[in-house]
Amino acid sequence: MAAALPPAFAKFRQGERLRVAMIGTGLRGQSQLGPLLSRDDVELVAICDTQRVMLDKAQAIIEKAGRRRPEVYGGNGDVNAWKKLLARKNLDAVFIVTPWEWHAPQAIAAMEARIAVACEVVAGITLQDHWDVLRAQQRTGTPYMLLENVCYRRDVMAVLQMVRAGLFGELVHMQAGYQHDLRGVKFNSGDPSEPYGSGVEFGDKGFSEAQWRAQHSIERNGELYPSHGIGPCAMYANVHRGNRFTHINAFASKARGLHDYIVKHPKGGPDHPNAKLSFALGDVVTTTLRCENGETILLQHDTSLPRPYSLGFRVQGTDGLWMDVNRSIHIEGRSPQHKW
Amino acid sequence: MAAALPPAFAKFRQGERLRVAMIGTGLRGQSQLGPLLSRDDVELVAICDTQRVMLDKAQAIIEKAGRRRPEVYGGNGDVNAWKKLLARKNLDAVFIVTPWEWHAPQAIAAMEARIAVACEVVAGITLQDHWDVLRAQQRTGTPYMLLENVCYRRDVMAVLQMVRAGLFGELVHMQAGYQHDLRGVKFNSGDPSEPYGSGVEFGDKGFSEAQWRAQHSIERNGELYPSHGIGPCAMYANVHRGNRFTHINAFASKARGLHDYIVKHPKGGPDHPNAKLSFALGDVVTTTLRCENGETILLQHDTSLPRPYSLGFRVQGTDGLWMDVNRSIHIEGRSPQHKW
Repeated sequence: MAAALPPAFAKFRQGERLRVAMIGTGLRGQSQLGPLLSRDDVELVAICDTQRVMLDKAQAIIEKAGRRRPEVYGGNGDVNAWKKLLARKNLDAVFIVTPWEWHAPQAIAAMEARIAVACEVVAGITLQDHWDVLRAQQRTGTPYMLLENVCYRRDVMAVLQMVRAGLFGELVHMQAGYQHDLRGVKFNSGDPSEPYGSGVEFGDKGFSEAQWRAQHSIERNGELYPSHGIGPCAMYANVHRGNRFTHINAFASKARGLHDYIVKHPKGGPDHPNAKLSFALGDVVTTTLRCENGETILLQHDTSLPRPYSLGFRVQGTDGLWMDVNRSIHIEGRSPQHKW
Repeated sequence: MAAALPPAFAKFRQGERLRVAMIGTGLRGQSQLGPLLSRDDVELVAICDTQRVMLDKAQAIIEKAGRRRPEVYGGNGDVNAWKKLLARKNLDAVFIVTPWEWHAPQAIAAMEARIAVACEVVAGITLQDHWDVLRAQQRTGTPYMLLENVCYRRDVMAVLQMVRAGLFGELVHMQAGYQHDLRGVKFNSGDPSEPYGSGVEFGDKGFSEAQWRAQHSIERNGELYPSHGIGPCAMYANVHRGNRFTHINAFASKARGLHDYIVKHPKGGPDHPNAKLSFALGDVVTTTLRCENGETILLQHDTSLPRPYSLGFRVQGTDGLWMDVNRSIHIEGRSPQHKW
């Protein structure tokens, strides 16, 4: 059953304000409020979070911007408050800025309600999640956008233009990844005033991303966060515009970084209960892909060791290449600290 | 049957000159003569090559150094002249600086004759070649050294010292490879005065490495030249000193670079007969390995595309990392030329 053009598009054409909601007003959601509130053609009509502290912080940002207070859902720990938000009338679009495991069910429910979706990466956890999101989009015809910001990095877009202008010749090989020291994001002290690097707690004792993100490193091994790399590479390689991925392989190293971080942290130590944690996620996961048109792509996931931030881009063709890779010696405690 | 200590070692202890020969006095062999002739404890007693021009060039270098003329084998196209050289009495050691396919048979024959071997990389072509070389060494007890020069690069050795001093903590991941634009080595004009970049001929019409090296790109696909990368990484990871490789996987991209080079070269073009050549070797071959102790290693072979020289080292542990990777945009004809 084909759906009509979503109402959001028509509104934009008529110069009306889009009525937008946000599910998840944690630190990431709060950072996204700025651009949203700066637009005259958008009205933020509703926000939702499980935690009162995050809703209050979001309200303060909205007030400071001089915009009308949105309707508030949740704040009492209810993890299903977002369903009431999606049941509202007259919602054109929703930003999903929640922990990873909520992205797929919330996006699917929004599309079923004909509400356009802007979803933070990742699209889902399992392969089935991804199929379910895709099928919901196809079934409902509702717009869905994965908010892969690296696709819009200034240099990444410049290189896309260079690729399309043929400056590198025929593309042969690409590299990218997620190489970002997240030890102090996965764990913190639980104190809302110190979200990054402040301790070795997680889950109920952590704050912000530490509440849910460490758990993925405990339970899952693989390329957990591919889109910063594969998003731009898919654009460069014209994937699903005359090309597609045909082969994949991944190797994971041993997992040492997070245990080491807990043991060495001033608030941790070998006797801290979290020193007994076992981590499934290899510190460096190396994934190779091959495309129908013969290009190879290398992805690297590296979030549990001390290192300079570098997505490690490489775009290589018959006429030349672009590489944006850190070149350095980096020794913990002796090299400049990464700013989260 | 265990062999006695090879005589070469005893000679060094007694302050006698080592009697050394060189099989293969092409451009690489000639470049190795300098260090050899500079040593008072070494006497170059014999040289061998199939080509008179290369023997003459070697003799000129030896004379210029003021050293005694060695006995000469070959020079008449006979590809088996090296066998007569190895049948000499009183030879302590032999340098093997021949095309790849000769390394294994010449090294094995030398070890069988109890002549210590210094062999240019690679050790052999097939897996069986490598087993045969290893078994000959074990059977004869004769010293065999693969001349992997990158193991002795100043920074590579400094980092080995840092690894052993524990500066990077426990090692988790390594990267290296052979990323070297060899298009102008695999092909040239055949003119001995212009060995690099001068044309698109190979085999009988080429000169120096073009006589044999292009053929490997035509016939073989894979990581053809791993030791520049895996040599240092094996040292870092203590392979065969309490660690070993357990898993391997490799992905090859399409092969475009050499065809493109032939077509675009001023002496080539779309109507040149070599524009019809088909190449088996993918332009970028990406290999991942895993070690018994949980480290991963990434190797990249990239010799048929325009690019800056970079072996792409990365040595990463729980306390930090070293990376030596080019960071650049490189566009053929607009970026500085690689000096061969």
